[in-house]
This record gives sequence, C-alpha cells and structure tokens, in this order.
Amino acid sequence: MSSVVLLLSCRDKVGIVAGVSGWIASIGGNIIDAQQHTDAEDGVFFQRVSFTPPSGVNLDDLEQQFAVIAGQFGLDYQFCSLPHRPRTAILVSKHLHCLSDLLSRAHLGDLSIDVQLVISNHSDAEGISSMYGKPFVHLPVGTSDGERAEQEQQLASLLSSSSLELVILARYMLVLPQSVVAPWSAKMINIHHSFLPSFVGANPYRQAHDRGVKLIGATAHYVSENLDEGPIIAQDVVRVTHRDNVKELNRRGRDLETVVLANAVRAHVEHRILVMGNRTVVFE
Amino acid sequence: MSSVVLLLSCRDKVGIVAGVSGWIASIGGNIIDAQQHTDAEDGVFFQRVSFTPPSGVNLDDLEQQFAVIAGQFGLDYQFCSLPHRPRTAILVSKHLHCLSDLLSRAHLGDLSIDVQLVISNHSDAEGISSMYGKPFVHLPVGTSDGERAEQEQQLASLLSSSSLELVILARYMLVLPQSVVAPWSAKMINIHHSFLPSFVGANPYRQAHDRGVKLIGATAHYVSENLDEGPIIAQDVVRVTHRDNVKELNRRGRDLETVVLANAVRAHVEHRILVMGNRTVVFE
Amino acid sequence: MSSVVLLLSCRDKVGIVAGVSGWIASIGGNIIDAQQHTDAEDGVFFQRVSFTPPSGVNLDDLEQQFAVIAGQFGLDYQFCSLPHRPRTAILVSKHLHCLSDLLSRAHLGDLSIDVQLVISNHSDAEGISSMYGKPFVHLPVGTSDGERAEQEQQLASLLSSSSLELVILARYMLVLPQSVVAPWSAKMINIHHSFLPSFVGANPYRQAHDRGVKLIGATAHYVSENLDEGPIIAQDVVRVTHRDNVKELNRRGRDLETVVLANAVRAHVEHRILVMGNRTVVFE
Amino acid sequence: MSSVVLLLSCRDKVGIVAGVSGWIASIGGNIIDAQQHTDAEDGVFFQRVSFTPPSGVNLDDLEQQFAVIAGQFGLDYQFCSLPHRPRTAILVSKHLHCLSDLLSRAHLGDLSIDVQLVISNHSDAEGISSMYGKPFVHLPVGTSDGERAEQEQQLASLLSSSSLELVILARYMLVLPQSVVAPWSAKMINIHHSFLPSFVGANPYRQAHDRGVKLIGATAHYVSENLDEGPIIAQDVVRVTHRDNVKELNRRGRDLETVVLANAVRAHVEHRILVMGNRTVVFE
Repeated sequence: MSSVVLLLSCRDKVGIVAGVSGWIASIGGNIIDAQQHTDAEDGVFFQRVSFTPPSGVNLDDLEQQFAVIAGQFGLDYQFCSLPHRPRTAILVSKHLHCLSDLLSRAHLGDLSIDVQLVISNHSDAEGISSMYGKPFVHLPVGTSDGERAEQEQQLASLLSSSSLELVILARYMLVLPQSVVAPWSAKMINIHHSFLPSFVGANPYRQAHDRGVKLIGATAHYVSENLDEGPIIAQDVVRVTHRDNVKELNRRGRDLETVVLANAVRAHVEHRILVMGNRTVVFE
Repeated sequence: MSSVVLLLSCRDKVGIVAGVSGWIASIGGNIIDAQQHTDAEDGVFFQRVSFTPPSGVNLDDLEQQFAVIAGQFGLDYQFCSLPHRPRTAILVSKHLHCLSDLLSRAHLGDLSIDVQLVISNHSDAEGISSMYGKPFVHLPVGTSDGERAEQEQQLASLLSSSSLELVILARYMLVLPQSVVAPWSAKMINIHHSFLPSFVGANPYRQAHDRGVKLIGATAHYVSENLDEGPIIAQDVVRVTHRDNVKELNRRGRDLETVVLANAVRAHVEHRILVMGNRTVVFE
Repeated sequence: MSSVVLLLSCRDKVGIVAGVSGWIASIGGNIIDAQQHTDAEDGVFFQRVSFTPPSGVNLDDLEQQFAVIAGQFGLDYQFCSLPHRPRTAILVSKHLHCLSDLLSRAHLGDLSIDVQLVISNHSDAEGISSMYGKPFVHLPVGTSDGERAEQEQQLASLLSSSSLELVILARYMLVLPQSVVAPWSAKMINIHHSFLPSFVGANPYRQAHDRGVKLIGATAHYVSENLDEGPIIAQDVVRVTHRDNVKELNRRGRDLETVVLANAVRAHVEHRILVMGNRTVVFE
Repeated sequence: MSSVVLLLSCRDKVGIVAGVSGWIASIGGNIIDAQQHTDAEDGVFFQRVSFTPPSGVNLDDLEQQFAVIAGQFGLDYQFCSLPHRPRTAILVSKHLHCLSDLLSRAHLGDLSIDVQLVISNHSDAEGISSMYGKPFVHLPVGTSDGERAEQEQQLASLLSSSSLELVILARYMLVLPQSVVAPWSAKMINIHHSFLPSFVGANPYRQAHDRGVKLIGATAHYVSENLDEGPIIAQDVVRVTHRDNVKELNRRGRDLETVVLANAVRAHVEHRILVMGNRTVVFE
C-alpha cells in the first residue's frame, strides 16, 4: 500500500477540514491530495483525501484511530488503499468492443483491474477471453420464463462465489433482476449506449436515429434497482449527421462506449466516486 | 442575387444527379457547391446545389424552366437566392442572452437576419431592443385563461401582419398553441435549454441537476405541433461536474444556447436545411 | 463583501492545510469552498479557500492576523473579496465580436466587470461602445516609427491614469511594447485566435488553413514580455474541414474567441487563477 | 466488389459533375453517394463518387471506359473497390496501446485491415502480436550510426518485399529516413501525440506540460519527407488541467491517439482521402 484514500461525507458544519487534516498531521501522515465539495442545496459535505500513511499502519488501525473524529462530526467514511486492483467479473453479450478494450487495458497496465472471469449469455466472447487467458463462463438463456430465472440464479451464485469486488456490464444486453443486482450496490458498473436519460431501454441508436438527434452519447453508471436509472459516473457524446444511419451510429458509438466505460472504471478503482442518492461526486 | 440555391428531395432513382447537373449546365449556370444525401432506409434522395445563374434570370424563370426535370423525377424543390436576409421577429421572456447575441450578430454582420421587431411577455427586453433600434412589443399575459388566449391571438396577428419570413423563439418561456405555430412550419426556430429528448418542458437545468448528468446541452429545432418535439437543427453539450449547482448550470448553458441557436439560424438563412418528417438534413 | 478568497502558494510541506483551515476556524470563518493542488514535480503547493469572514472584519485585518501562519509556512498569499467587479479597459481594433460580447455580458450581469473605457487604434468600435454608454478613446497610429511610439506612450498613460484594475485585449491587433505591458502583470488578458503555441503572430487562421489542420482554436492568456507566450488561462477548439476557407475559419473562430475570452475573464474576476512561471493553476 | 469508388481532382471548370454523373448513368452504374469540394482559392475541384457498377465489369474496364471523360476535363483520378482490406504492416516501439487497439479492431471487424506483420525496434510487442496470431519482426537498433543505417535498410526491404499496401506507424519512435519513407507516399500513416503543428519532435507531452496548455491533442497524418509535417488526416483534443502531470497527460493522450489513428486508417481504407500538397480533403 503506497497511499491511503479517505472518502467521507456528512452534514456540512464548521471545522471538518481542520479536524480531518489535523488528525492526518497528528498521526504523521502526509497529504498528497485533497478535494472537497459542499452541496449547499442539500447541506452535505464530501471529501476525498489521499495521504502517505505512517509506516507499519494498516487500514484497520486507521479506521480505529479515526473513530473519534468521525463521531465528532457524524461522518460516513471509508479508508481504501492505493494501488487497488479489484477482482473483477465482466458480463457481455454479442458486442465485444468494450470487453476487448477492458482486457487490453488491464493487460497493458492502463487499467487496474484483475479480471477473474468473463460471463456471457452467448458464446461469442469465448475467443477473446481465452486469448487473454481469462476463464469464460457461458450462461445461455432458454426460451421459457423458468429458464430465464434459472440463468439469473446461476449468475447470482457465480458472482457471489468468486470473491469478486467489482462487476462490469460491458454491453450485457439482458435486464438483471433485483436478486442479482442487490448485493452489488456501487460495485456494479454498466455502460448504456445513449446519453441518459435519453433513450432508455432497447435499441438506443435506433431511437436516436428516429428522433434525428445531432449528437449521440454513452453513459456509464452504477446499476440500481431501475433499469438505466442508477447514479451516472461518466458520459460523453460525439457529433453525428443525417449521413449516419443506424449501423453507422453503432460504429461511432463504439469508441464512445469503450472510453466512457474505461473512465468510469478508472474513477471507481482509484476511489474517486462518492454516491449521494441518484447522483455521484466524482473527484478528478 | 449573387447565387441561387436549389433544394430538392424525391424518391431515390437513377439519373437524378446527372439530370440536375445537366440542366444547370444547359442554362449556362456554374455550380459552386453541391451536396447530396440518400437515405437508403427510407429511399429518399436530398440535394442542395448552389450555382451562379446566367445573368438576367430570376427565381421565377428558373422555377419554370426546371419544371420539366422536376416532373420527370418527381422532385419536391425550391429555388432560393443568396445572400438572403429574412425579415425576422424575435420572441423572448426574461432571459436576454440569446436576444442580445442575435442582435449583436445581426448588427456586426455575422448573421444575415433583418430584425423587424422584438416581442415579449415581459418588459425586460425593452432596453436592449431600443439600444439596437429595434421596435419592442410588450404582450403581457394576464392571469385568467381568457387573458392568455387573448395574448396568443394578439401574438398570432402581430406575426402574420408584419411580412415576416422567420420567427425566432430566443428563450420565450410560454408554450405556443397550434393557432400561433401552424402558419410557421419550418420558419419558426426555438432554442430549448437541454439536450433533447432529455428534459422536455420546464426547468431543464433543474431536471439535469437532479438526474446527476455529467453534460448539459442545448437544442435548436423547428417548432412543430408538440412541445419540444420538432425537427432538430443543431445541438451541443458542455461538460459539468458535481460542483455545478442549478444556478451554475444555467450560467454554463447560456453560452451553449446562444451558439447553438445562432448556428441553427445561420443554417436556415443559408438554405442548408431540408426537413423530412421529424428529422432534418443539414448540409454543411 | 459577502465572502473572502485566500489564494496562496508555497514550497510543499506537511501541515499547511491543517494550519490554514485551523486558522480560519479560529477566527470564526466558515469555509465555503477549498481547492488545492500540489505540483509534485516542482514541489509547490497551491490553494484557493473561500470563506465567510466574521462580521466587521476587513481584508487588512485578515492579512495582519494571517501573518503568523504565512510566516510559519513561507506562504505567498493574497486576500480578495467577492463579489469583485474590477474597473476594466477593453482594447480592440477592427474585429468587434469580443468587445460586443463583453459589453453584453457586463450589461446583462453575466460577467462581473465594470467597463470604464474602450480604446482602439481604429474608430469602428465607437458605435457599439456608445450604445452601451462607454467612453471610447480613439488612439490612431501614424505611419512613422515615431508616431507609433507616441501612440504607445499615450496608451500607457491612459491605462495608468484611470484607476484600472484589469485590461482586456479583445482582438487588439498591435503588438504592445514592454513599456505598456510591464505594469499589468497578471492583470492584462489577451485573446489569441489560435490554439497556442501553434500559429503565433499574424493571421493565424491563414496559417491554420495553409497547414491543413482539422481543428482551430483560441487561447486566452495573461500578457507577458514575449508575444503570445504568456501564461495560458483558457483554450478551446472547434472542428473544421477542407470545406472551410480562411473566411469561414474566421467566422467559426469568432464564437470560440468570445467564449474562451469570457471564461478567462470570469476566472480572473472570481480569483480562481494562480500563476506559476509560464503556467497557470485555474481552480474551477 | 460490392461498390466502386471514383476519386478525382482537376482544375475547376464547368460541366464536370454533369460529365461524371452522365458517364456513370451511361454505363448503367447507380450512384450510392457523391461528395465534391471546390477549393475556390486554388481553383481545384475534388470529387468522391461511389456507385454500384454494372455486373461483370472490373476496375480496369472502368478505367479504360472513363479515359475519354478524364481527358476531356484533365482529371487526375483513380478507381477503387469496396470493401477494401489492405495488406498492412504496423510499426511500433514500446507504447502498445495503438497496436493493441488496431489488432482488436481488425479482429472484431471494426476496421478493415489485413495485418500481415508487426515490426518493432523493441521486443515488447511480441506478446500481443502473437496473441492475435500476427508475425512479429524484431529489428533492434544498435548504438552506432552504421547499425542504425543497417536497421533502416532491413526495414525498407521488409516493407517492400511483403506485398504491403499500407504501413501504420502506431507510436514507432524512430525517425525514418527518406529511403524508407519515399515509396509509401499517401500509404504510410503516423500518429503523433500532439496537436500539430504544436510540439513537433520528441516528448510532446512534456512540451505540452511545460507550456501549460489546457488541451492536449493527437494528430494522424500521412508521412512525408519532413518529420511531423505530412498532410493531416485527423486530429482531436482532450481537456487537461493543472492537475495533470506529464504521466497523466500520457495516460489521457492514449485514448486520443488510438481513436484518432483508427479514424484516419478507416478514412484511408474507405478511399475517403484526397491529398492536395500538404493538406487533405477527407470526405465523410
């Protein structure tokens, strides 16, 4: 552990910054970076502090020692270490560009994730997974409701039994039920191929084409109970014209999707994200 | 008239380009620029050709002479002249940045519109209008339904009696009824302060804030029967963060709105736009 | 004065944040926002803290009281008040879009500057200046070297005699000598119509066209001794194509220039900028 | 061959469009898309026409049949077929993100190139090349001038002996001499990690950092005689702040480089590019 990140939030009040920075100084920590945000409308204070901890101290020690300050200010907080390389599962269907991009970034060291397995309802992703030496699990979906429920149960079990810390939906095209999603609050990231909240649901590029928009977008968000309504982490758009048919929108969108998803995953593994209700604070 | 623009559309078929360019050559016209687009899905062909006409020929002559070609290919078409400086009314409520920007551009020669009058349901715009020497009409709205209907009738009359060619809704915050809108098909441009189809209706920056989006947008579109659903001409977005409250979103959005609206108006006055249903072809 | 901004920089060392935030707490100030940056390569720490001061305290009091902390950490610092509306001169030549935009923003309350006078080597700007009720000073340049030197001397005198706090070069096309520039370190903002350091000097859009770039840019920077080499505050670009001739590049560039310049001026009047050598820290 | 692309340029004159479209109609071809551009300043006309050829006709037939029209208008022209999947060599040094991206796109069918071999002065790229089943050639450079010249000769031979149609410099960090470059005019694409013409040569991200720019860029261009001065095909930028040190600029730049290079290669393989001197016409 080369540095520690402290993420905290609380009702805004006087003296928090002095209290936190004073405590870090008192234990001999050296602040590398600190960012804060006060949501004046809701009266909530957010902070991300990264610091070099004194040698021989672990996260549990820090949590214990910080308890007094935390109690004093009523802080929600967590300590995390950097570098962080979470054990990750990637779910994908037939569009493989995000998966291929994530595997390439992890392989080249551009993105700090430890891909444990790739899961798909189709078999298309098996080749690229094995090229990168990643276990591939094929969980096809039958045609009946019962078979669909069974597949979801298998998926839930697989995710829970693999000591995973992060799940990435890299163009996984099936809607997941609460039974699968619930355990992964703020730990499951989806890429949706539109500029949310526009074009929720199926075929967003078709919807975008038929509405005649002049920009298309991609949105990475934590998965919550309702489809495509979770807290947004990252978004971007690209200009399109009347020349772009649906196929061309899909092509242009691919580059957006890969970059937006990678940026969201990077923010997550670097402990830059705090969730407040349906919104996020993403410290850069 | 220094050049002529021919805008046309038709069912796609073989030989249109040859037919049109051959006709222009046959009358001694010299093509300056030609752009075309085939919507393969719907089987429709669009073209914009600008050319130097033979001397002494007017638009009526051209329309007559072109009738044979047009009949042969089943063309919808119109001839326009450039430069074009349409007699324009600007409608505005209390936010004056788009109005001020349009008046400044017209004054400096950046935008080819001849502003005939400024109309508002508030009196805030009177000052800037008179600075630029433009007639200002105050059409306040009473509190009863009857007074609202009366104001709408006054507005409709005013627009129809002023020999106007273009109406710009530059942050006019009242919904217009069909009776006002209907005569201005593809001649009334609105700026909506969101990336449509996200956040239709009132307070889009508030909606954007509460949804936690990471980009905000602006959309210029022709006004049609249904609010915020007309054919989109231009859109753009700007990056925002958790630091931006609703007031700050409004501020950042202002620059987007002025530039997007100005670009849409420019495309209109340069005869670059063809409408197909709810979409536009905008030739650049 | 509704709030105070403290801008500071120093050699990076342990305890600065705790020291500063502790001091603000000790005087009964309430931190509204704090942003910091450590340039690890150069070992320099930067901070911007805005806070509500205790009632009845002025900037001089704060400076005196802060002296102990400042001495302890070797801080360079300044206290400023918000809102700040500096007395401003705008210099311009024949292109009036930036001037018109700045006057409009100041008039509508979008930009907090108090325009005292407009100065130009041409007379074109007189009309728009008088529309906004701003004094206009015409300082034409003769053809001889002597006349040029005389005009520069008049300009230097005019700037120094007007109790100005900010000078904006809004497309002023004459190079200013050190004698004019020197007194305005970090108080004179220029807009250059290229993405610096590309295309310094004259006719950057012509240069951009001839090089065949696919994006054009604009750069706002503090004016320093060497032309177009001062610390950059803000930059932006817009996509262009082979269809854009030099005239069209000029047109597209105008919107960039106005927005980039306005953003730079806004950052300045909100005390968001710290200069380090030839670079800037711009806290958002 | 599902369609034919005709690329042409000539001195601008009356009747070219009619002549070309008439000829296509006369041989029974059906125009799918046509784009044209007149550079009024230089008096040059450019056109790209794609059309469905009559069955049983090959490119040689078309060239012969077109000769009369070409002679009449003094056209430079070439016929190409689509889809086109050129035999391609990729040169790379130690930064592998562009290589990995190109191999992934080719593998997934996103980019129509047939990668024949990967060449590097280092061995780092061997792993990823073999994962995709691509031959890897290691051409290390010795320390003496003679060894450098020898490596260049080997490289030139390798390129010329492999029936290649396209060479991509995907972060190949050695300057290539004329002897290597000359045979590949408009067939060798380089990615430079800056917004050219800013920051030519070595370490552009270091240069960008030291100049304090607020945007960094990437430029894909055809390689010509002088380093980083060839005709630009595609460029893009991304916003950076004072928080981004050189390492972070490198990281942010990687996504730019991969997307800009891929877009340039796509434009090339789809025959969308015409070179005029040091500029390009890229039809979209």
